[in-house]
Amino acid sequence: MQHELTKEIQGEYSYGIGPYKEPVLRIEPGDTVAVHTVDAFEGKITSESVKPSSIATLPFVNPLCGPIWVDGAQPGDVLAVDILSIQPVGPQPRGVTCLQKYFGLLSPTASSLSEPFPEIVKRVNVTNEGIFWSEEIVFPYEPFVGTIGTAPRVATINSLTPDNHGGNMDLPDVTPGSTIYLPVRAEGGLLYLGDIHACQGDGELCGVAIEMASLTEIKINLIKDLPLAWPRLEDEDRIMSIGSSKPLEDAVKIAYNDLIHWMVDSYGFDKWDAYFILTQAGRVRIANVVDPLYTAGAWIDKRYLKSGK
Amino acid sequence: MQHELTKEIQGEYSYGIGPYKEPVLRIEPGDTVAVHTVDAFEGKITSESVKPSSIATLPFVNPLCGPIWVDGAQPGDVLAVDILSIQPVGPQPRGVTCLQKYFGLLSPTASSLSEPFPEIVKRVNVTNEGIFWSEEIVFPYEPFVGTIGTAPRVATINSLTPDNHGGNMDLPDVTPGSTIYLPVRAEGGLLYLGDIHACQGDGELCGVAIEMASLTEIKINLIKDLPLAWPRLEDEDRIMSIGSSKPLEDAVKIAYNDLIHWMVDSYGFDKWDAYFILTQAGRVRIANVVDPLYTAGAWIDKRYLKSGK
Amino acid sequence: MQHELTKEIQGEYSYGIGPYKEPVLRIEPGDTVAVHTVDAFEGKITSESVKPSSIATLPFVNPLCGPIWVDGAQPGDVLAVDILSIQPVGPQPRGVTCLQKYFGLLSPTASSLSEPFPEIVKRVNVTNEGIFWSEEIVFPYEPFVGTIGTAPRVATINSLTPDNHGGNMDLPDVTPGSTIYLPVRAEGGLLYLGDIHACQGDGELCGVAIEMASLTEIKINLIKDLPLAWPRLEDEDRIMSIGSSKPLEDAVKIAYNDLIHWMVDSYGFDKWDAYFILTQAGRVRIANVVDPLYTAGAWIDKRYLKSGK
Amino acid sequence: MQHELTKEIQGEYSYGIGPYKEPVLRIEPGDTVAVHTVDAFEGKITSESVKPSSIATLPFVNPLCGPIWVDGAQPGDVLAVDILSIQPVGPQPRGVTCLQKYFGLLSPTASSLSEPFPEIVKRVNVTNEGIFWSEEIVFPYEPFVGTIGTAPRVATINSLTPDNHGGNMDLPDVTPGSTIYLPVRAEGGLLYLGDIHACQGDGELCGVAIEMASLTEIKINLIKDLPLAWPRLEDEDRIMSIGSSKPLEDAVKIAYNDLIHWMVDSYGFDKWDAYFILTQAGRVRIANVVDPLYTAGAWIDKRYLKSGK
Repeated sequence: MQHELTKEIQGEYSYGIGPYKEPVLRIEPGDTVAVHTVDAFEGKITSESVKPSSIATLPFVNPLCGPIWVDGAQPGDVLAVDILSIQPVGPQPRGVTCLQKYFGLLSPTASSLSEPFPEIVKRVNVTNEGIFWSEEIVFPYEPFVGTIGTAPRVATINSLTPDNHGGNMDLPDVTPGSTIYLPVRAEGGLLYLGDIHACQGDGELCGVAIEMASLTEIKINLIKDLPLAWPRLEDEDRIMSIGSSKPLEDAVKIAYNDLIHWMVDSYGFDKWDAYFILTQAGRVRIANVVDPLYTAGAWIDKRYLKSGK
Repeated sequence: MQHELTKEIQGEYSYGIGPYKEPVLRIEPGDTVAVHTVDAFEGKITSESVKPSSIATLPFVNPLCGPIWVDGAQPGDVLAVDILSIQPVGPQPRGVTCLQKYFGLLSPTASSLSEPFPEIVKRVNVTNEGIFWSEEIVFPYEPFVGTIGTAPRVATINSLTPDNHGGNMDLPDVTPGSTIYLPVRAEGGLLYLGDIHACQGDGELCGVAIEMASLTEIKINLIKDLPLAWPRLEDEDRIMSIGSSKPLEDAVKIAYNDLIHWMVDSYGFDKWDAYFILTQAGRVRIANVVDPLYTAGAWIDKRYLKSGK
Repeated sequence: MQHELTKEIQGEYSYGIGPYKEPVLRIEPGDTVAVHTVDAFEGKITSESVKPSSIATLPFVNPLCGPIWVDGAQPGDVLAVDILSIQPVGPQPRGVTCLQKYFGLLSPTASSLSEPFPEIVKRVNVTNEGIFWSEEIVFPYEPFVGTIGTAPRVATINSLTPDNHGGNMDLPDVTPGSTIYLPVRAEGGLLYLGDIHACQGDGELCGVAIEMASLTEIKINLIKDLPLAWPRLEDEDRIMSIGSSKPLEDAVKIAYNDLIHWMVDSYGFDKWDAYFILTQAGRVRIANVVDPLYTAGAWIDKRYLKSGK
Repeated sequence: MQHELTKEIQGEYSYGIGPYKEPVLRIEPGDTVAVHTVDAFEGKITSESVKPSSIATLPFVNPLCGPIWVDGAQPGDVLAVDILSIQPVGPQPRGVTCLQKYFGLLSPTASSLSEPFPEIVKRVNVTNEGIFWSEEIVFPYEPFVGTIGTAPRVATINSLTPDNHGGNMDLPDVTPGSTIYLPVRAEGGLLYLGDIHACQGDGELCGVAIEMASLTEIKINLIKDLPLAWPRLEDEDRIMSIGSSKPLEDAVKIAYNDLIHWMVDSYGFDKWDAYFILTQAGRVRIANVVDPLYTAGAWIDKRYLKSGK
């Protein structure tokens, strides 16, 4: 697939998503952008003997590229971002994951009296053919954008937190072939992205997927006057609504409820019918259960959407 | 597929899972049993004009068959139950779902000041070819056992609650071709099952799947001296641990943690390796987010299990 | 205060609350009962060198006295239990608390990969004058009934779990001078109680208060035809509704909502007025955040109840 | 009580807490400041017929005064803010509360399918003698600062969210006579405050206390080199740690755990002893269960702190 790149960005990383920073790039709706991302540790884990706690100092983690200003984007609009391709870059081993002292679903929290977990770093080769974990284990290369979001109107959300602006959702479905819809709340939309994962299990159990630097190509379209409460995603087969909250059931609630509204507003379903149909055929992806808010995506197969009217 | 049935049970439904009731059947390990189940409403929703609140009185809902006494089963053992087949039975429309006043993920709870939801009943034809929801929507026939569990040592758990004994997990993976492992805590194991669903979406959103009466065939094996903390499931491709709790993240925690122990104990993994591998390749099914406790299953593909030693 | 005791019970401890067991005592409404309780460890922690894990085997913990059958009690009625007095009994040191491997709010759970907490036992002298923790610290003697509940209709709940039947609420307000209202769901009411605490902080942080054997006097009255959803409590100054659930906010929700219904039904308030008044003057006690369900009591001072009509 | 006011601020309200805005006042440590606050609705609810939804547009609610720059304050320091006095100001009725469509513990959320709650406004006279709710109900005047916090290092938190910077905690203990300790994370500390409540019940049930404009006097001291993870509070009798999170049990966990560290670091307790003592004598205030994160304060009476060494 050959994309004509109109714009390119790299460097000047940001640790917050908000209207506080000058755009690093200004584009027209419909433009394609090649984004050179660094990994979530900014490339500082240069060997397996580096302690994550020695190089990652909160809140200076999960660096993002952006903001990208989209001409004409106004509060109440939507950025529709097509994920075109994600290429791993840099010398091998390009992929890194690690165990941290107080991070991850099964780890003690800093607010417990337990001993911290050991710090363990694992670096792996990543190619388009796979992630070479060990001689016997090769994970499929299923890359996605871990963090992508638009600026809120007033506040600036740190780059680790997902919420109704998108952000650090760690949702494996934000992958080439999909389009993510993000609400515009500040003028220009102000899109940030980064935190590319070569693959990830549901929930991102220990808190760190296979992190890597990448060349990520996206196309940014603008949809006028579609005020979304939460991000949405679409691919060839599915429509998905995305919620982020704690506890996890609240994220599922937000996602399913938004999906009902989508079915009602865009496909003509009665709301109780939509509720019934999702009960029988809805699907849920647990994206992360480790970040400051947890993320779930609820989707329905498009074959069930024909009969809404 | 032809199964030689050695035993058969039906009638005499139970609304609790516990050691309080005389066994309705006594079997040897390895026996196959044909279980004639009624639907979760005991067949009382005979038309779409029946109000669920008029026929379902707590705690007399979700009737189960059992208990089945397994000779030789002692606390610390495991019942390994193969799900052989599930056939819909009874005159059409055999399948029923409904909206209830105060039940379901998006519904108000009885502890809110909001108005209840409307009571709506929907009955549908169910065959091995599909669930005929409307002219345009046919859901695939993907039947499973919604409730299956063994008796606790002392207490008797109502048939609506899933917990570490199994119970009302509403997990679509308990389907023909799978084996569910249930901890024995009372002498004889005392297996109960029922609540067959013709299909169900993740989470069982409105709280009621496509409920139906069935002829369900299971084979019950006994594994001695394997004290399980929580139920587990296995099929051709996967091993899955199952947790039930609230909030939902605790169910996910229980499931993933048990899966790590399984990988360590049975496949020789180091515990931190297992934690890492599940981070990259673990999968989670949200079974229910509507019952008194929520259920999640975490699994790993067997192709990643070869290298544990 | 002199009470004429009509009945007395002791021994034959129960580890479940349910209709499964023959009454140990049958009384008339209005009778007073002297209950000889053992501590939550059944008196087995006889020195500070005893490991709790060596003597407390689940589910055989938190032994209760009962059930007490109340003549005429039918489902839909209420037992109104006056707590008359609680006396510590047995040789000093009578009080015991301990740290357990996997129990308590700040402790790792058995489903974590963390190391367990150390097992530490602390025994203390308890008199009506105080709990003598150390030379410098004396806690006030503020005894209460940790576990008190009525049987559900079908199931039998283990003695560790609080729910809408009461049970192991660990609510310090169940103290002499208060009346607790418990819903009758099985014939005879079937009251169980035990788990007396000499004092306890909010939430019962490490999971074990100052546990002690006691002579506890109660008076049991019967209120006909008052179907309660959850337990309630009353003393000279306050009315309190009690919820048990997870997460903790659900327990608070249940309690406040029930209190609104109480204000509406018994004191003539409009429901929105009650909601407003509790917003400004409601109070919440966190009873426990360590048991299988968490318990909260929400109350309002009686001086605000005069103007409901 | 006569305070010599060195500084005064009012106007120029802020809807975020962060380093994004120029200080409105620069002070020396030890200075006293008179802060003229508006109510949480910026005074726009001028009669009981105003619909809150017509005047409060997210995120432009809960206006704060600030930031106040404190000379010499560096990341790792603490601002110790004494609350000196809080006076109600403006013409009567000065106090306002209201019911909103989708806000409050018992209200439906915007993510439910339920109907919204009615919008009801209630305005009341507030004096130092009380809050005159009705002819029969007078709530005591117990004013406090609902929102007070310091800027994070990178992000800007909206004024509705409490977190480890303080913020919209809605904690009734931030009242005259108390000192709140807030971590400095950005240079100058950058203190914001507002959202004064004339009184409030535990949890702030419907989400809106008795809101009022005020003249609030505070004294700001600087403690060098005391890196706090979470806010703390102290008054004559108690030390209190404050956590904000969801679910509510996590806020309680954070607060109790921080309190243990405080007892260990400042009073010489062994950590297990502190855990034990809080189990028997700790107290918890539920501040809010309605904001984006919930807040709890855990405290211990100072009389138990003498024996730590």
